[in-house]
Amino acid sequence: MEMKLSEIAEMIGGELIGNHSVIIRDVAQIENAKEGEISFIAHKKYFKFLSQTNASGIIVPTDIVSSDKNIIKIKNPYISFIKLVQMFRPLQTTLKIGIDERAVIGNNCKIEDGGSIAAYAVLEDDVIIRKGAKIFPGVYLGRKVVVDEDAVIYPNVSILRNVIIGKRVIIHSGTVIGSDGFGYVRDGEQYVKVPHTGIVVIEDDVEIGANCTVDRATIGETRIKKGCKIDNLIHIAHNVIVGENTVMAAQVGISGSTTIGKDVQIGGQAGFIHHLKIGDRVQVGAQAGVINSLPDDTCVWGTPAKKLTETKKIEIYLRKIPDLFKRVKNLEKRNKS
Amino acid sequence: MEMKLSEIAEMIGGELIGNHSVIIRDVAQIENAKEGEISFIAHKKYFKFLSQTNASGIIVPTDIVSSDKNIIKIKNPYISFIKLVQMFRPLQTTLKIGIDERAVIGNNCKIEDGGSIAAYAVLEDDVIIRKGAKIFPGVYLGRKVVVDEDAVIYPNVSILRNVIIGKRVIIHSGTVIGSDGFGYVRDGEQYVKVPHTGIVVIEDDVEIGANCTVDRATIGETRIKKGCKIDNLIHIAHNVIVGENTVMAAQVGISGSTTIGKDVQIGGQAGFIHHLKIGDRVQVGAQAGVINSLPDDTCVWGTPAKKLTETKKIEIYLRKIPDLFKRVKNLEKRNKS
Amino acid sequence: MEMKLSEIAEMIGGELIGNHSVIIRDVAQIENAKEGEISFIAHKKYFKFLSQTNASGIIVPTDIVSSDKNIIKIKNPYISFIKLVQMFRPLQTTLKIGIDERAVIGNNCKIEDGGSIAAYAVLEDDVIIRKGAKIFPGVYLGRKVVVDEDAVIYPNVSILRNVIIGKRVIIHSGTVIGSDGFGYVRDGEQYVKVPHTGIVVIEDDVEIGANCTVDRATIGETRIKKGCKIDNLIHIAHNVIVGENTVMAAQVGISGSTTIGKDVQIGGQAGFIHHLKIGDRVQVGAQAGVINSLPDDTCVWGTPAKKLTETKKIEIYLRKIPDLFKRVKNLEKRNKS
Repeated sequence: MEMKLSEIAEMIGGELIGNHSVIIRDVAQIENAKEGEISFIAHKKYFKFLSQTNASGIIVPTDIVSSDKNIIKIKNPYISFIKLVQMFRPLQTTLKIGIDERAVIGNNCKIEDGGSIAAYAVLEDDVIIRKGAKIFPGVYLGRKVVVDEDAVIYPNVSILRNVIIGKRVIIHSGTVIGSDGFGYVRDGEQYVKVPHTGIVVIEDDVEIGANCTVDRATIGETRIKKGCKIDNLIHIAHNVIVGENTVMAAQVGISGSTTIGKDVQIGGQAGFIHHLKIGDRVQVGAQAGVINSLPDDTCVWGTPAKKLTETKKIEIYLRKIPDLFKRVKNLEKRNKS
Repeated sequence: MEMKLSEIAEMIGGELIGNHSVIIRDVAQIENAKEGEISFIAHKKYFKFLSQTNASGIIVPTDIVSSDKNIIKIKNPYISFIKLVQMFRPLQTTLKIGIDERAVIGNNCKIEDGGSIAAYAVLEDDVIIRKGAKIFPGVYLGRKVVVDEDAVIYPNVSILRNVIIGKRVIIHSGTVIGSDGFGYVRDGEQYVKVPHTGIVVIEDDVEIGANCTVDRATIGETRIKKGCKIDNLIHIAHNVIVGENTVMAAQVGISGSTTIGKDVQIGGQAGFIHHLKIGDRVQVGAQAGVINSLPDDTCVWGTPAKKLTETKKIEIYLRKIPDLFKRVKNLEKRNKS
Repeated sequence: MEMKLSEIAEMIGGELIGNHSVIIRDVAQIENAKEGEISFIAHKKYFKFLSQTNASGIIVPTDIVSSDKNIIKIKNPYISFIKLVQMFRPLQTTLKIGIDERAVIGNNCKIEDGGSIAAYAVLEDDVIIRKGAKIFPGVYLGRKVVVDEDAVIYPNVSILRNVIIGKRVIIHSGTVIGSDGFGYVRDGEQYVKVPHTGIVVIEDDVEIGANCTVDRATIGETRIKKGCKIDNLIHIAHNVIVGENTVMAAQVGISGSTTIGKDVQIGGQAGFIHHLKIGDRVQVGAQAGVINSLPDDTCVWGTPAKKLTETKKIEIYLRKIPDLFKRVKNLEKRNKS
């Protein structure tokens, strides 16, 4: 597809300075954009690329005053750029609307118009697929699973019985939702398995990455609330509740019955022990090991996790420790003499 | 289903104090149990809920003397409660006994009566499925795999060639057993792959969570012994031996040829380097990084892992380090003067 | 199969000292080799096994002068032994050459002679499978995926659209390549998903373990270069570049846009934050948390990662910290008096 730069400026509602009639054919990163491509700059550290880029158009923040390039000034360049990416590079899928004849559909399933069920997907009895939902090949949906409108379940995902998937949820390949939680009671020499009869609820607009695991509740529910974004290889245990719009980077692990607030940000490989209560807007650094509940707006790092300022201060002092030993030795020498 | 509380007391062998004829219809957590439901209390910290709960029956430890509620006193309330959960909420699966016509069954496979093979499961040649074993959709079983009596292999599990799965083993979705171990020999500029011709043995009563990986031995075997419980996203490398009734929380990683004793408890995200020998009843804290072999009954934490008491002591002193620097500075001032 | 020890010596080009006509039927580890088996010793710490082993032949390094056993002296015993393993224990697969009729082949796919597509594999439109490539059951290949010559894609792997898999690449079960990267822009209360329109390139001779995730680039590409060896449960984010012959142990996580040099060695569970530049031949210890770019040939450990020597030194001093507090207290007492 082709668009004049002036048409793009009008569409996104920005102020175009430069050549109005230049033709745009694709989107690109600022560092390697070519003629005919549009790019964007959002952060100051990329401003240097403005003079070097070969892009035919650059979306820039309003605090850029002028340039010899064709620029479109707008408040939030990245959001506008995303709209252009969606337009110039629409997601092409060969998934057809309707039910592939090689899918297994259990008894009493309800598949609304506009849902897609691919080959070799397996739906057990009583599954409900709402309109616009997409079930890719190799997906398993257990008994009574509900997949709401426009949700996308990528290939080889396993969703066990009684799990509820909200509207526009995206679940990437290999993820498992509704596996039994990790619970046993010691009975003499052996462990007795605690039955997991609860459910999992994934609310609207959640995105879950590839090869994650979200365990079903013992009794009650495991719940990931509206708008959460979960990266790859993340473990969410039984009875965990994650608040709205919380984001977690890859390989995070959250133990059983811990509650995470809303708008929380969790760095990669961080871990939480069980039964904690983590407040809203908490920030947890990468690889942190959280072993205590945290009030709202706390910022922690380290294992065991401490306030970020404290961990950083200790870290600075740690590097001076060998020197401190020397200083104490000197003092001891003097005090002996 | 419905049962009188007196019938339940008799069934589990406990002493009922209160209304014998109240009807129980479901199980529930003590915090949110409703009329007609039965719950339990095992630990002292939940005793407070006894006066508040709306449960029509509560299973309690024998040290609770009396209550205005209907209580059943018994030695191990949790184990008894688990029996009730299994009874009131039986696991419902739509998996039919027998071989689904859409499964692939290789040459010379032996599937005993009472085994279930679901649609789109694939069994290579010479696979043996014993009675009562359940193979869910999308499972891959490589050549000569044996799945013993009453084992459950959940959807989209991959079990590669020559792996032996014991009786009553449960393997959750997405787990991979028998992938090649990570072994290469440098030959000039490149790495040469070490062939992995060994096997994996998963002994009776082991449960393995979702999206784990258990690698095949280089030569010999990787073995997870009887009764082990393995959480989600855990990595067990080639030639690892895990002793009986050992439990590991999610995201643990065990490197090649390390031996773990029996009754060991490993916290989430802990890691072990290769060729270690970890004794029986060892306890390893979450996120610990174990780089040395450990004798029986050791309790370690931290990276590198040290005795728990030592790591805790260092942790306490660490927080006082900034203050120590001040104190040394003061001493230096005095000594100069 | 059977071979005389003299034939083996000739084949691998080593010097045989001992019985030339002894018959070899299998390979074994030195510790438990039996008569009729051949083994090897590569490292000094295994030399002690030479006098104890029952192996009928042992491949040894050239610095072993003599033995009462049948030895074959050669420069690199392990590489030679690997050749014997491949010969005595050839990988047996029941995967047939050609396209199984239960595979789904999209429109306009190109499958060269000698390629294997197993049952319940799904190829979307425009997929290219080159000669000798093996696609196991349950594999999903998205639109325009290319799998080059002799690559092996194990069961239940998901490779999303536009991903390129090089020659002789091995991808183990459950791994996901080409899932969307983790990118969102905050827009008021909500997150807007950044479209991921880039690709992933896995170059020749790369091996990727089980249940890994390699995300597609936002724009541009995620690339794992020639000869890299990636263990299980590893996360490689969008736009990461990994240099040639780099190896990573299990559960490593690399955040978005970080570049890793060639011949880098990364220990298990190590993590890298985003946008770093890691040089060539860098060594990163297990569980390290790398938060800064690293020049060539650096060796780091710890969280945050520091030079190995520094982390080790701090670790030694840490254990003496409780004692240091005592010493400072003593000094303070003296200074007061």
